[in-house]
Amino acid sequence: MSSVWHQARRAARMNPSIIREILKVTEKPGILSMAGGLPSSDTFPVEAIQAACDRVLSATPREALQYAASEGFGPLREWVVARVAQLGVQATPDQVLITTGSQQALDLVGKVLCDQGAPVGVETPTYLGALQAFTPFEPVFASLASDADGVDPNAIANLPKQAPGARFAYLLPNYQNPTGRMMSAVRRISVMQAAQAARLPIVEDNPYGDLWFDHPPPPALSSYWPEGSIYLGSFSKVFAPGFRLGYMIAPKELYPKLLQAKQAADLHTPGFNQRVVYEVIKGGFLDTHVPTIRARYKASRDAMAVALREHLPPGCEWQAPEGGMFFWVRLPEGFDALALLPKAVEAGIAFVPGSAFYAHEPDVRTLRLSFVTLSPDLIHEGVALLGQVLRETMEGAVELTP
Amino acid sequence: MSSVWHQARRAARMNPSIIREILKVTEKPGILSMAGGLPSSDTFPVEAIQAACDRVLSATPREALQYAASEGFGPLREWVVARVAQLGVQATPDQVLITTGSQQALDLVGKVLCDQGAPVGVETPTYLGALQAFTPFEPVFASLASDADGVDPNAIANLPKQAPGARFAYLLPNYQNPTGRMMSAVRRISVMQAAQAARLPIVEDNPYGDLWFDHPPPPALSSYWPEGSIYLGSFSKVFAPGFRLGYMIAPKELYPKLLQAKQAADLHTPGFNQRVVYEVIKGGFLDTHVPTIRARYKASRDAMAVALREHLPPGCEWQAPEGGMFFWVRLPEGFDALALLPKAVEAGIAFVPGSAFYAHEPDVRTLRLSFVTLSPDLIHEGVALLGQVLRETMEGAVELTP
Repeated sequence: MSSVWHQARRAARMNPSIIREILKVTEKPGILSMAGGLPSSDTFPVEAIQAACDRVLSATPREALQYAASEGFGPLREWVVARVAQLGVQATPDQVLITTGSQQALDLVGKVLCDQGAPVGVETPTYLGALQAFTPFEPVFASLASDADGVDPNAIANLPKQAPGARFAYLLPNYQNPTGRMMSAVRRISVMQAAQAARLPIVEDNPYGDLWFDHPPPPALSSYWPEGSIYLGSFSKVFAPGFRLGYMIAPKELYPKLLQAKQAADLHTPGFNQRVVYEVIKGGFLDTHVPTIRARYKASRDAMAVALREHLPPGCEWQAPEGGMFFWVRLPEGFDALALLPKAVEAGIAFVPGSAFYAHEPDVRTLRLSFVTLSPDLIHEGVALLGQVLRETMEGAVELTP
Repeated sequence: MSSVWHQARRAARMNPSIIREILKVTEKPGILSMAGGLPSSDTFPVEAIQAACDRVLSATPREALQYAASEGFGPLREWVVARVAQLGVQATPDQVLITTGSQQALDLVGKVLCDQGAPVGVETPTYLGALQAFTPFEPVFASLASDADGVDPNAIANLPKQAPGARFAYLLPNYQNPTGRMMSAVRRISVMQAAQAARLPIVEDNPYGDLWFDHPPPPALSSYWPEGSIYLGSFSKVFAPGFRLGYMIAPKELYPKLLQAKQAADLHTPGFNQRVVYEVIKGGFLDTHVPTIRARYKASRDAMAVALREHLPPGCEWQAPEGGMFFWVRLPEGFDALALLPKAVEAGIAFVPGSAFYAHEPDVRTLRLSFVTLSPDLIHEGVALLGQVLRETMEGAVELTP
């Protein structure tokens, strides 16, 4: 007998996250995983959180445990205003919406701005989670040409012509997931000039901007055209992902609809979590904490850079990122990173095949390596194993096609 | 110059929550509010939470603060299986999805099951938050005839004929929000027989079922037809709303799509919150805690029943609920509860006009009174003021139409 359930049309487009499926395999004990984008748990401020939980539950238990405003906790929203001002983003607290991780902000943006068949521009490649968040709202993705400096301003300028009715371009200017690339200051200006001239709004996602190694990134894209920009931030990389806390800065004209979407989605982000995080960070905690994360990740980036040079066979390409969590490696011609993965897992390592991050025409030779989950020693070991797998595959291919 | 933002078609349907707007007014100091459905903060297990936060952060800080599985925390999912078994719902842990409050479960159900123009049956009246969660997915609501025992089985039987392609009926069998009514055991059987015969799936929402006063409610609707039912539960009323923790039991055929919708929506519900709640409840805490909430709410229910009898003018109708948090009052002919509200607020009290809870043709004479937020003394005072406002309005009307 057939099912009594009739699924929505959009459900047919929703597919399992290939990353999640890979992570399940790679969470087996003994696997050196460079796959997941998991911040190092050594960086979690456990003691500060413990003290903050105590203070919040002693001082304001009823407020912290009761239903709360959908907009978010007032003092935290004010903190966000001051924080994004450092990136050049001028906003008022009534433009700040606290979200359940910045993933939720992507869902709300999709709900309020995406229609069936309406184009949405994305970088090539782009964050997989954004593709997944927008997909249920049935947009048509337009892949925007991108290089080592980020998205191509011409691609932005041409999008409304090539894809009439494009709703926005989704951009990650800082240490992008998956490529690790940073958009230069000059590029930012060209991109935002092109966007404003083309009247193409921008959704700027900045989960990694605080994780710079030598120089902070240039001003936020949103700073150049505030009324045409939505800015997304996150506490996952500078605090802890397990609290699921992010935020969105939206133009005032859009805020009411985003807020209604938020109410409908989960009423509000846990008030307890908002208060605990605010209690930890209100006195400037991140000013001393984030530099320790930067130092750690920089050392890991350096370790992986050395290991890649030492162990990867000729023909592999990559660039050392200036911040963030990821190396993006392009294998020599003939390789398919997805096809390589089972062999890698057998050898005891894991990565994410790059094809997952493309809206169209994946470059099957690419893969993403996270350098923040393993220690430098294990990074060395893991990359050595990757090199070995690549060499064996190359030799095997040579043998097969003599 | 016109806006550069083009909103989704669905956004035009999304409107501010009238309850949220009312709550803003009624949160003014000095207002005796019987409006909000806020659990009494006296019932929050603050000390147990504090101890659990300490234990979780001492024993498993890295796991609690890291990214986690979208399905939810394993031990909590097993706990849920045992919990719902007491209501007759047979499920396995792989059917349990932990959600960011049960409001999120409604959003996920809408995303996976609602299409533009496809009918969804709702009780008359029904939970406003469900209407808001489903609305962005553009269903057509069909109001199902309902009486003091709950939804009419004939309305269920006829829905697929009257509204072909109906996706599901959304039902709250226990101490419904807003009416406080409970579906009798006999009615449950007729409703589920009609649903199964009509091949109409059921989404059962049970946030209030634990808050019974004299007898626990009959078995869950889902127990009668598991493969045609989704069951939603919540920790908001028996633990604390500020943790935003709910859960969904779904048929195995639907689970993968609901999980993908969950991943896209917020990756996962905060792992820290899941572990803290599990730490509090794992040893049977709710078995002793929930009876204290029941006793408190029963006393408040009794206080409001007495106050209503004493102070409301003739012609008002209500039934004392057997559990939950709400009285549903119908005013005499000629009254409009929404029009009355400003006068009530001026007099120092607040309620929610019933019209907010109807998908169609609101009964403007109805209003919802919460009895769990105020103390019995203040309930008495608040209801006395309501009676006074009603009498003054009646006298005014008589004067105006001599």
